[in-house]
Amino acid sequence: MITETHIVQFDSIALDCGSKLAPVDVAYETYGELNARKNNAVLVLHAFSGDAHAAGTDQSTGAIGWWDSMIGPGKGFDTDKYFVISSNILGGCRGTSGPGSINPETGCPYAMSFPPVTIPDMVRLQKMLTEHLGIERLLAVSGGSMGAMQALQWALAYPDAVAASIPIAGTARHSPQQIAFNEVGRQAIMADLDWNEGDYYGKRPPARGLAVARMVGHITYMSDESMREKFGRRLRDQDQFEVESYLRYRGSQFVDRFDANSYLYITKAMDYFDLTAGRPSLSAAFDGVKSRFLVISFSSDWLYPSYQSLDIVRALRGRNCDVAYCDLPSTYGHDAFLVHVSDQAELVRGFLASTFRERASSEQAVRGRS
Amino acid sequence: MITETHIVQFDSIALDCGSKLAPVDVAYETYGELNARKNNAVLVLHAFSGDAHAAGTDQSTGAIGWWDSMIGPGKGFDTDKYFVISSNILGGCRGTSGPGSINPETGCPYAMSFPPVTIPDMVRLQKMLTEHLGIERLLAVSGGSMGAMQALQWALAYPDAVAASIPIAGTARHSPQQIAFNEVGRQAIMADLDWNEGDYYGKRPPARGLAVARMVGHITYMSDESMREKFGRRLRDQDQFEVESYLRYRGSQFVDRFDANSYLYITKAMDYFDLTAGRPSLSAAFDGVKSRFLVISFSSDWLYPSYQSLDIVRALRGRNCDVAYCDLPSTYGHDAFLVHVSDQAELVRGFLASTFRERASSEQAVRGRS
Repeated sequence: MITETHIVQFDSIALDCGSKLAPVDVAYETYGELNARKNNAVLVLHAFSGDAHAAGTDQSTGAIGWWDSMIGPGKGFDTDKYFVISSNILGGCRGTSGPGSINPETGCPYAMSFPPVTIPDMVRLQKMLTEHLGIERLLAVSGGSMGAMQALQWALAYPDAVAASIPIAGTARHSPQQIAFNEVGRQAIMADLDWNEGDYYGKRPPARGLAVARMVGHITYMSDESMREKFGRRLRDQDQFEVESYLRYRGSQFVDRFDANSYLYITKAMDYFDLTAGRPSLSAAFDGVKSRFLVISFSSDWLYPSYQSLDIVRALRGRNCDVAYCDLPSTYGHDAFLVHVSDQAELVRGFLASTFRERASSEQAVRGRS
Repeated sequence: MITETHIVQFDSIALDCGSKLAPVDVAYETYGELNARKNNAVLVLHAFSGDAHAAGTDQSTGAIGWWDSMIGPGKGFDTDKYFVISSNILGGCRGTSGPGSINPETGCPYAMSFPPVTIPDMVRLQKMLTEHLGIERLLAVSGGSMGAMQALQWALAYPDAVAASIPIAGTARHSPQQIAFNEVGRQAIMADLDWNEGDYYGKRPPARGLAVARMVGHITYMSDESMREKFGRRLRDQDQFEVESYLRYRGSQFVDRFDANSYLYITKAMDYFDLTAGRPSLSAAFDGVKSRFLVISFSSDWLYPSYQSLDIVRALRGRNCDVAYCDLPSTYGHDAFLVHVSDQAELVRGFLASTFRERASSEQAVRGRS
């Protein structure tokens, strides 16, 4: 499957902070075919550092998509049956407007003058994209980690536009520990003199700080057990353990593909996301929700622990929502949703098929009546 | 209890790396009285960032010792009964020789020319200190975290010089996850341009890097649950969560009392400590050990998880050593050994008392025979 990233530009988007961003670009890819009834579209939602290239092989770089194990012919998101859409989030740095984009008023990158963005803002832009693609109602939205937050927000904000939501390894709001790890990353970036208050475009980026931030991230994505299996106490050379060399490599590699200011903006959006804010309970957030849910967590995920998924499930059940939940056994930690996908794919496949059948039969009933 | 830190200087110490450090200073404090038979001495061993000031109120600064909850009249280490010694570790920055000390050959701080130090080196210097204080055999050695590593090393290296060892919340060797967190701290320091290859004495120290390193540390010292209890998602102000403000404060405060190069040296000593190295098993490490053991871990400690203490207990039992083990229930994470001490104090009190009784009666038997 050879793929290509497209960019669509919209005139403007209204943001939660009260400002308007104009114009706004969205980078996206699609896989499979939209059927005539336009009822087989699935939107996948990437995690913190992902991009629009979710599946297949990029035609110019040869890079494999970040969820290629889950998306394709016969896979969990079966592109023989479904039309899969993936887009880069607002505030990102992989084609969609973000702090590195040019501010038309100044002709320079926004940098820290880019308006603060929220998870609801990101989802609002995705809604504009799906409408642009001619889709009124999605069969499903799904993502892991920050993608799970978006999947929840979709069901809340656009109850008539999504038949099913599949939040994986996510949460309805960050714990102080999750905020703390993000804050360490932000402080590492801002401690780098090259950060220069965010004004480094065309100059040297804060590569050392961003690499340290990424190293912290990678520790939290793995489990104690998976690190023992992968690295043990093996030495790379006399002065370096394998695990140190791995983290340094991952840190330095990240600098080539990610913008430090996007790191700041996106982690803030995650930290401020809170479905209970201004509501008496998490259950109250799901008043008016119409979609079905499949919630998935992983037993060894300590960054987004299973109890956070269970909180979501409990809240949905409190509103009598249609929710299936599975805590999958895995040693891979948070990374499991990306690397340990066989059980996950099976669950998603079955859930999508039953959602599609239900939807088709209810649409037929509506047509019968009219 | 008003206390004072003393410094003793020795001509030299031979190090595991093959070099000699000459001269070498040791900062130490003592609490309680050494009895006439000199059989009531207990050495407490500090964790990564501790110092000699373990208990009481420092006469000049008014600072309270880091284990004041455990050491004092009627406390776990009862100074009405025992003579408690605490010293700053080799490589540290609180009075004992370390990278910030003056190299007599150059008249300048050693900085990165300070020889690499190991946990056995630290313990060797402590042995010199206890001999200097006229103590041939310690009643007990005890410490948490890195202090636990030293407590194990004491029992191995000087089987005739220690009657009991109490390693708390420790390990016989670092896991890759523990190495990884230390490596992030090191990289954060070295990413700070003010680090200047370690040559910053008399100039601006790498304060931003060291603060980031400390922030990571503090996350690992607490548990997910204790952070939720302490901070929740409360905001300090519109742009800052309580947990962020706490971590920033702790980070910036650390810079005033800790030397970044000591951070590098001490974390390396921890990472390279491995009682299984060159041995067929951990049990084999305990061949020839003569002391009793009380091993303590805490249920919510994810930095030094209970399974690491259990590994030690199993290995000791494999050599038929006298070992008691307790996994104490606590929500405080790794910090529990410092802050959640009532059960711990009770265990230590009973264990020390029985060790003292046994020792006194065996000494009496020896005297009876002679």
